[in-house]
Amino acid sequence: MEQYKRPYVPEPAIRRLPWYLACVSRLRAKGVEYVSSTTISKQLNVDASQIAKDLSYLNIKGKTRIGYEVKQLEQGLDDFLGFDRCHNAVMLGVGSLGRALILDSGLSRYGLDIVAGFDVDPSVIGTDIGGLPIYDISELAARREGLGAEIAIIAVPFESAPDVADLCVKAGFKALWNFTPFHFKTSPEITIENTSIYAHLAVMYNRMHSR
Amino acid sequence: MEQYKRPYVPEPAIRRLPWYLACVSRLRAKGVEYVSSTTISKQLNVDASQIAKDLSYLNIKGKTRIGYEVKQLEQGLDDFLGFDRCHNAVMLGVGSLGRALILDSGLSRYGLDIVAGFDVDPSVIGTDIGGLPIYDISELAARREGLGAEIAIIAVPFESAPDVADLCVKAGFKALWNFTPFHFKTSPEITIENTSIYAHLAVMYNRMHSR
Repeated sequence: MEQYKRPYVPEPAIRRLPWYLACVSRLRAKGVEYVSSTTISKQLNVDASQIAKDLSYLNIKGKTRIGYEVKQLEQGLDDFLGFDRCHNAVMLGVGSLGRALILDSGLSRYGLDIVAGFDVDPSVIGTDIGGLPIYDISELAARREGLGAEIAIIAVPFESAPDVADLCVKAGFKALWNFTPFHFKTSPEITIENTSIYAHLAVMYNRMHSR
Repeated sequence: MEQYKRPYVPEPAIRRLPWYLACVSRLRAKGVEYVSSTTISKQLNVDASQIAKDLSYLNIKGKTRIGYEVKQLEQGLDDFLGFDRCHNAVMLGVGSLGRALILDSGLSRYGLDIVAGFDVDPSVIGTDIGGLPIYDISELAARREGLGAEIAIIAVPFESAPDVADLCVKAGFKALWNFTPFHFKTSPEITIENTSIYAHLAVMYNRMHSR
């Protein structure tokens, strides 16, 4: 489906690319036309040589003494990261976190369109949240294709997380974005991204207490 | 203030501890009394020897052939991680993501109590969100101590993130939990934890497209 051969970029570099994107978007909004890796480096605490190397994976190269063209760099990063394409997703579990993520319109800026929610609670099934229909989770497999959804976001209570992940594999999802504290194994069948914001909280508390 | 000498635990281990906690909480809810590192290992795709090593930093040791006492392990992890203590925090920026995080009651399960929000938008200043007062961000320094808040959660537009971080340092916060895509430098003055969920989205898209 892809129009071009996607360059290989190592994951640690991929994790840094959104930082560069945020940085150059800010510069573009300020009317800056060119930026050097040194300037980006000062703002983000990443070595300038690392930035140049990361961007070279995308075949983005700066000009000597001028640097990178800001608009071109922003577009190149957006393109590669897929933030300017549309990825349909469903939210599994519309308790406090699931509801919160549905209402975070910021995700669509990053190419993620949540198109429906699923839950087990009869009091929310059949209602809508922010205009999104909420279905019974037993209908997940039957509705996935019609919704055009390849990504399932998991925000169920962690006790149910393993069972819900099994449901997703059977329903044919290509990726799981897991927000529960339950850490899923990588799988040959499906892409898994664990985003446990609570693990970050643990690291932050520890750094605070260790100072 | 701490009652005991806090053991040193390397950060990669700290990031794994919440997974173990989620796993043993699930076992405890099921009525399981003892668990081996092998059982935890199978659920989380972490080597059993790694699990035993991580837990030994906390002076938690299993018994030969019996394993870990589930309730004791859960309590030990909760204690060490600080999830059973109360940390007051304020939310800076109550747009879609900030509002969403305020309404995610799940955070208080992990010891984080959001006690107020701050914004620049006159239409939200003076209102409340989920019972929480929303103040003008210009009052941040004056109100911090009265609120007993040491943690600032940053969910402002990323263009404003660097300025808001400066405000926080001046106001005397001990830690910043940054949800903007802007990646902050580590600082000698303040603990910084960058939680860019959008970077995770980039990694997930890339894995999907690379399959």
